[in-house]
Amino acid sequence: MAQISIIGTGSMGQAISTALAKGGHTVELLGHAEAGRPVTGEIVVLAVPYPALAEIAATRGQQLAGRIVVDITNPVNFETFDSLTVPADSSATAELAAALPDSRVVKAFNTTFAATLASGTVGDLPTTVLIAGDDAGAKSALAEAVGASGLRAIDAGALARARELEAMGFLQITLAAAEKISWTAGFAVIS
Amino acid sequence: MAQISIIGTGSMGQAISTALAKGGHTVELLGHAEAGRPVTGEIVVLAVPYPALAEIAATRGQQLAGRIVVDITNPVNFETFDSLTVPADSSATAELAAALPDSRVVKAFNTTFAATLASGTVGDLPTTVLIAGDDAGAKSALAEAVGASGLRAIDAGALARARELEAMGFLQITLAAAEKISWTAGFAVIS
Repeated sequence: MAQISIIGTGSMGQAISTALAKGGHTVELLGHAEAGRPVTGEIVVLAVPYPALAEIAATRGQQLAGRIVVDITNPVNFETFDSLTVPADSSATAELAAALPDSRVVKAFNTTFAATLASGTVGDLPTTVLIAGDDAGAKSALAEAVGASGLRAIDAGALARARELEAMGFLQITLAAAEKISWTAGFAVIS
Repeated sequence: MAQISIIGTGSMGQAISTALAKGGHTVELLGHAEAGRPVTGEIVVLAVPYPALAEIAATRGQQLAGRIVVDITNPVNFETFDSLTVPADSSATAELAAALPDSRVVKAFNTTFAATLASGTVGDLPTTVLIAGDDAGAKSALAEAVGASGLRAIDAGALARARELEAMGFLQITLAAAEKISWTAGFAVIS
């Protein structure tokens, strides 16, 4: 069983906490404002909005060294709802990895709505967590933790694929915002 | 019932032809090499690889004026399998729309593998065709043709969303190439 810290107590932080606790992992949930409280987990999920990543990297950089750091963000421009706020050839995860060179940064949970993480299902199918990153050990440790919790995990490739995962997350959000799909449903992955 | 021309007799052209014929539409399937044969459909599906789009736009531009032109391509760099070949802030569909200013260009069928179009299902779910474009009438005409054929169609927003659809199509191809999913399965959309 893994030691997991989740920073961020919003809907995603709570849903990931609920989901991972089902796997028997030790899960601690920290408020983003609790900047003075150190994380203890070998896996640290940053369940915060994209704009908070830079501050977390700046204040917790040393503390996160050597740990598996999970970026779940979709850096959507919420004013225009027509683009992402990261450069077109980059991703939030690539930026975070550059800011945390001593951490094992992976992308995950950004294509799964909170409700589908909490319920474990999308429609009648198991919720699938797509994981991208350059550290194979970090990806498999997270996949193991996710799998033990009753969710499915799929290795989505290198850190560079975070760009496509963010595009997919963005598209899914626009479809829900336009009421083409429900916030309790979305993209499922069928093997 | 719609008059539909499909240029390209590869697996995607055949699958789209099979799928749309189920809707009782008049479907003509043209080889990409039959450059001298004019299309007759009000909806023209370019079921060709991305590199062929520029040539079709150059040779058939006048003929395609006023018609609904459907771009299905995923402009994957098949040498590196690590990126798309279009600029990061653009899409194959945006390029095609610029080359065919008098046509009603939409993106569709690029997130559905051929097998799922032919069978009409992804796993136990209906195959969903995501359609993006700036011409609402063109999108609804295609959605109607797709829906009459037993597939689901969802309006995925403006032409700008073709970028995200191509990212999703690329990701799906990489997952299948890495044997994480099957070429007969892939992403499903649950409302």
